[in-house]
Amino acid sequence: MGTVERSGDDHTSEMESAEEEEVVGSGELAQHLLKSGVTRNEMIAAITNRLHAEAMASLPPNVRRRIRALRTLQKEFVDIEAKFYSEVHALECKYEKLYKPLYEKRALIVNGTYEPNDDECLNPWRDDTEEEELARAVQNAAITEGEEKKDDKAIEPPMDPNVKGIPDFWYNIFRNVSMLSEMMQEHDEPILKCLQDIKVQMHEDPISFTLEFYFAPNEYFTNTVLTKEYLMKCKPDEESPLEFEGPEIYSCKGCEINWNAGKNVTVKTIKKKQKHKSRGSVRTVTKSVQADSFFNFFNPPTLPEDPNSTVASDVQALLTADFEIGHYIRERVVSRAVLLYTGEGLEDDDDDDYEEEEDSYSDEDSGTEEVSDVED
Amino acid sequence: MGTVERSGDDHTSEMESAEEEEVVGSGELAQHLLKSGVTRNEMIAAITNRLHAEAMASLPPNVRRRIRALRTLQKEFVDIEAKFYSEVHALECKYEKLYKPLYEKRALIVNGTYEPNDDECLNPWRDDTEEEELARAVQNAAITEGEEKKDDKAIEPPMDPNVKGIPDFWYNIFRNVSMLSEMMQEHDEPILKCLQDIKVQMHEDPISFTLEFYFAPNEYFTNTVLTKEYLMKCKPDEESPLEFEGPEIYSCKGCEINWNAGKNVTVKTIKKKQKHKSRGSVRTVTKSVQADSFFNFFNPPTLPEDPNSTVASDVQALLTADFEIGHYIRERVVSRAVLLYTGEGLEDDDDDDYEEEEDSYSDEDSGTEEVSDVED
Repeated sequence: MGTVERSGDDHTSEMESAEEEEVVGSGELAQHLLKSGVTRNEMIAAITNRLHAEAMASLPPNVRRRIRALRTLQKEFVDIEAKFYSEVHALECKYEKLYKPLYEKRALIVNGTYEPNDDECLNPWRDDTEEEELARAVQNAAITEGEEKKDDKAIEPPMDPNVKGIPDFWYNIFRNVSMLSEMMQEHDEPILKCLQDIKVQMHEDPISFTLEFYFAPNEYFTNTVLTKEYLMKCKPDEESPLEFEGPEIYSCKGCEINWNAGKNVTVKTIKKKQKHKSRGSVRTVTKSVQADSFFNFFNPPTLPEDPNSTVASDVQALLTADFEIGHYIRERVVSRAVLLYTGEGLEDDDDDDYEEEEDSYSDEDSGTEEVSDVED
Repeated sequence: MGTVERSGDDHTSEMESAEEEEVVGSGELAQHLLKSGVTRNEMIAAITNRLHAEAMASLPPNVRRRIRALRTLQKEFVDIEAKFYSEVHALECKYEKLYKPLYEKRALIVNGTYEPNDDECLNPWRDDTEEEELARAVQNAAITEGEEKKDDKAIEPPMDPNVKGIPDFWYNIFRNVSMLSEMMQEHDEPILKCLQDIKVQMHEDPISFTLEFYFAPNEYFTNTVLTKEYLMKCKPDEESPLEFEGPEIYSCKGCEINWNAGKNVTVKTIKKKQKHKSRGSVRTVTKSVQADSFFNFFNPPTLPEDPNSTVASDVQALLTADFEIGHYIRERVVSRAVLLYTGEGLEDDDDDDYEEEEDSYSDEDSGTEEVSDVED
């Protein structure tokens, strides 16, 4: 898996803080722009351009001319770089085929169709004895700790020792990965327990990829696969070629879910009482509204066909988040599923939530807290 | 330029916040680990392993066995992935050669050896008229604003209109890019004004790259080039192969700077008064200590030869920062120099400093602030 794509175009936001300090100095322009109803990002972009122009204006014309020559060279660079990224994408397509047999075997093991032999269960780089011992120690500790611990776990019944495959494999990944667990609602959980596999299909031309979610037969919908396609571009933008940073997702397509009657978790019906204006009689109407659900992932907002038309900023924000999730599923979830299941491969993907908390910890503080917890 | 390398191994720190909440539940282990003098990161890693083992222990043995089979598959995946990254590195080496003529022409223009012709100064994707008009408007504004503005700029004399090349091109990049400006001290500035070019040399086997800093003859040192070499590895670690995330820098080498007498900005002499214990007489001794300077970049801390020996955490932190800087110079500075000079390509690379500030701004707040600034 390469890490060369960026999800969404966050170029403007990247510049925000760098330019933050200078915004004040261009107050007049800012006021003008605010009056004309531009967004903050558009404003910052305009001010950045203005500052750029100001810096340029203070230079002698011949120096400005040379800078323009460097920009021409930069455009040539970007055109070559685009070819580099196309070659990387072709490599990714080639390697996806090499990974495929591994993914297929994984699916067979997870879903209990294939039982691995002893050789396949050896992890020679790992001290298995140590792992076994630790596991045994933990089990012993659980026994000696007695009733209290058992009560804690009373809600979850122990797993049937004769169970097939690895139950709830993908569901547990959803629970472990915060980017996914944040999307998952309580009513999604029984459906996601039927999730049997996630596959990526890479397409070389036009460059794009499809995420395929395979489900066991279930009472919620009749589909066996739900798909989400991400379309990418790997060419510098004609109007602002120097902003090119490699392939990026620019659009996505969902799929229709054939929900069984009364099982659609993405809508909820709300009842409303309406009073007749003149007669004063009251009637109750039911209205369907969108409900929070992971399955809204398959019904993303659509972009206007005209690439030049402006997209509402809330739609843009939704799509940016959606692109990030699609990118993350392709890059990490599919390729490292077992590590996300065990928790080893969990990244700091909830950076934002914990940033401040982390800052306020020093090594010593955290240590002291631990110790006092134990002494209680 | 690819973006496939990670600088330094920050795997442990990535897991910190994800595991933060669970640390409390493993207080006893934490206490034990703290007593044995491990660092916080090592502690979190140990607790993560313990939690992993606990989760494993609660599963029936046949399920645990299947998870081990998935880990074997994951190791196979990682071995194939390492080949993918090697191919990407080979591609990067190939493209570096394609970029080379552009970089060479850039150096000629920057240093005034070559004057670009009109065709080379065309930026057809950009509305030049608009840029010219804005530049003129800014100049006019500066004139009508009168004395006050002139006073502000009094410190910087206007540039000689017959100047050659683009004066202080690289020095201005150092000023604009916060990662570099933070390293630059006042005494470094006149030296960095002599910086004429930064080049990257890619090496295919063993995979590595060298940053070359070319200087005009100057009174500070006799070197014409200062070099910094970064050594990378692209193979999964034998003991923890599943942590593999692609090529990473693992070591770097600086170069000796032949400072002219009294010109070494990386050392400062401090005078100390010493009192003789018995005689009570006082003498003054001078002592050389390291001074803050960008040029310490060429004298990084060395790693112990034995890869298994532990590195002090402060040295490790210095090296991690150093690897990030080397990676950034290669990835962004060399390939996008003109955009960093003009300010267009500045990234949010001082994310950490501004994170909180950004959080506290809403679009509206910032807008109001702008307006009130103007009304003052």
